[in-house]
Amino acid sequence: MSVGDVREAAGRIAGYVRRTPVMEVSPGLLLKLEGMQHSGSFKVRGGFNRVLTAGELPEAGVIAASGGNHGLAVAYVARTLGVRAEIFVPTVSSPVKVAGLRALGAEVTQTGAVYAEAYEASVKRAAESGALEIHAYDQAEVVAGQGTVGLEVLEQSGGVDTVLVAVGGGGLVAGITAAVAGRARVVAVEPELIPTLHRALEAGGPVRVEVSGVGADALGASRIGEIGYAVTAAAGVRSVLVSDEAIVDARREMWRSYRIAAEHAGATAFAALHSGAYTPAPGERVAVVVCGANTDPATLL
Amino acid sequence: MSVGDVREAAGRIAGYVRRTPVMEVSPGLLLKLEGMQHSGSFKVRGGFNRVLTAGELPEAGVIAASGGNHGLAVAYVARTLGVRAEIFVPTVSSPVKVAGLRALGAEVTQTGAVYAEAYEASVKRAAESGALEIHAYDQAEVVAGQGTVGLEVLEQSGGVDTVLVAVGGGGLVAGITAAVAGRARVVAVEPELIPTLHRALEAGGPVRVEVSGVGADALGASRIGEIGYAVTAAAGVRSVLVSDEAIVDARREMWRSYRIAAEHAGATAFAALHSGAYTPAPGERVAVVVCGANTDPATLL
Repeated sequence: MSVGDVREAAGRIAGYVRRTPVMEVSPGLLLKLEGMQHSGSFKVRGGFNRVLTAGELPEAGVIAASGGNHGLAVAYVARTLGVRAEIFVPTVSSPVKVAGLRALGAEVTQTGAVYAEAYEASVKRAAESGALEIHAYDQAEVVAGQGTVGLEVLEQSGGVDTVLVAVGGGGLVAGITAAVAGRARVVAVEPELIPTLHRALEAGGPVRVEVSGVGADALGASRIGEIGYAVTAAAGVRSVLVSDEAIVDARREMWRSYRIAAEHAGATAFAALHSGAYTPAPGERVAVVVCGANTDPATLL
Repeated sequence: MSVGDVREAAGRIAGYVRRTPVMEVSPGLLLKLEGMQHSGSFKVRGGFNRVLTAGELPEAGVIAASGGNHGLAVAYVARTLGVRAEIFVPTVSSPVKVAGLRALGAEVTQTGAVYAEAYEASVKRAAESGALEIHAYDQAEVVAGQGTVGLEVLEQSGGVDTVLVAVGGGGLVAGITAAVAGRARVVAVEPELIPTLHRALEAGGPVRVEVSGVGADALGASRIGEIGYAVTAAAGVRSVLVSDEAIVDARREMWRSYRIAAEHAGATAFAALHSGAYTPAPGERVAVVVCGANTDPATLL
C-alpha cells in the first residue's frame, strides 16, 4: 500500500464521491466532515474503488456482509453503477437498517447470530454466485479508496502535522497512513471497549478482542485486518484509547459547538482531543476525521 | 454599501468568525454551511463588525432585541469580547431560548407581547444606559458583516453564477448582494408566508406584511429593512417564494442526503431548488447559503 495506490484510487473514484469539507473550527483544529459523504460515511470510497478496479462485473453483481455503514455504502455503490448488490446481515440487525439497505435496492439476506456468521455465509454465497466480494476493510482496493480521505485532508488544509482517525477493522487508518506518509503523522483512536489495533500493536500481530460499547455498531471488528495492522505497525502509528463516556461527550460537543452530526464512531477521533487523551503540542495543526453520521439525530443533544 | 465595505468587515472580523465550509454536493450545486458558524448562524458576522467598528464601548456594553439567532449571536459576541450584553425578548419567548441566552452570559429582559414591543423597549433602554445598539439587520455595519458570507462563497467555490439566499429583514441578502456585485447574481428566497422583500419589490418600497409559518422564528421580520430593500432593489435581485411544505421537505432532504442540520430558515434557500421554484439553466453553478442550524435535531428526520 503506497501513496501511489491511493492517488490512483482518487482518480478512479472522482466523480462518484463527494469531496467533503474540511473546516478549521478553531486555530489549528480542523475537522474533515466525511459524515456528509454519500451514504453517510467514508465507506463508499473503498467500495467504488474496489468495483471500478474490477473492470466488468459478474452478472451476480457485488456482495458484502454488513448491517452497518459498509452495507449501506455497497448498496449505494451498486445502485449508482447499476449492478446487483446482495448484503448479508446477522438476524439481530435492526429492521430500520434492513429497510435502509432495501430502500437502496439491495437484496438483503438475514442469517447467523453474529456478524462473523453472516460474513461466512456471504463468502459461501459468493463462491456459488460469482459475485464480487467487497470486504469491509481487509482488501487492498478498499484500503486505497479509504485513503483518499487523507489526500483530501492534506490538500484542503494546506498541510497538517497530525491526523486523528478512528479504528475498527483498520481500513481507513491504513489508507490514510499510506496517503500522508512523510507529510503528516497519524494517531489511531479506539474505544477502550474495542481495542483491535491497540492489542495488536502490543501483541505484535492481529489478535481477537471482545467488542462492546457505543462504537460497536460501526467500529466493532473483533480483530484488526491484516492490511490495517501491517501498514500502521510499519509506520509506527500511535494508538490512543478513549472511554465510551469521552465518545458520548465529544459527540454532544460537536453538535453543540459546531452543529455537526456524528455517529459515535464518527466522534471517536475527536474524543481523543476533547478528553485530553491526545494533547497537541503548542502550534501543532491537527486534522480530525469525522468518519460517519449514520445516527438518529434525536440523540445528538 | 459596496464590496469595499464588505471587504473591510472581512478584515475586521477575521479571527473572530469561522470560515464555514462550502461543499459541492453534486456537480454545480454548492452549499455554504453557515449553520456551523459560532452561535449557529451567520449573525455573529454582523455583530462582530458592528462592535469592532464602534471602537471603545460604553460601560453598558451592547444591547439588542431578539429571542432568536440575533440574540444568541450578540450574546456570543459580547462574551468573546468581554463586554456586557443586554437582550430584550418578548414575554412569549420560550424558556429554552431565554436559558440559552443566559448561558452565554447575557442579561435577558422579557417584555412586550410581540417582538416590536421588545424592540421598542430595547431602544428606550439604550437611550438611558448608553449601550451600543446592534440591530438585527438594518445597520450598515451589520449588513457589511453579513456580506462576508458572499465573499467566502466566491473564494471557496472558485466562482459561481448564482447565490441563493433566504430573506427575513434583508441584512444577509443585502450584504451578499454587495459582496458579489458584478461577479454573481443573487436570488432572494422567502417563505410565501413571510414575503417581506417580495411585497416591497412589488410596492416599490418596504411595506408591512403578515408573518407566519415554519420560518417565522428566524425570518419573521414584518417588513424588509431600508438597507435590505435599497440594495436588493438597486441590484435587480430576483425574489422567489416557497411554500412551507417545500421548506419542510428541503430540510428533510438536507439531512437525508447530506447529513446537514438546518433550521427551517436555513433550508429556505435550498427549498427553491428542491421544489423547482428556481430552476438553474444547464451548466449554471449555484451556491445555496444554509444560513442557520439552531434547531432541535430530533426534528430533522
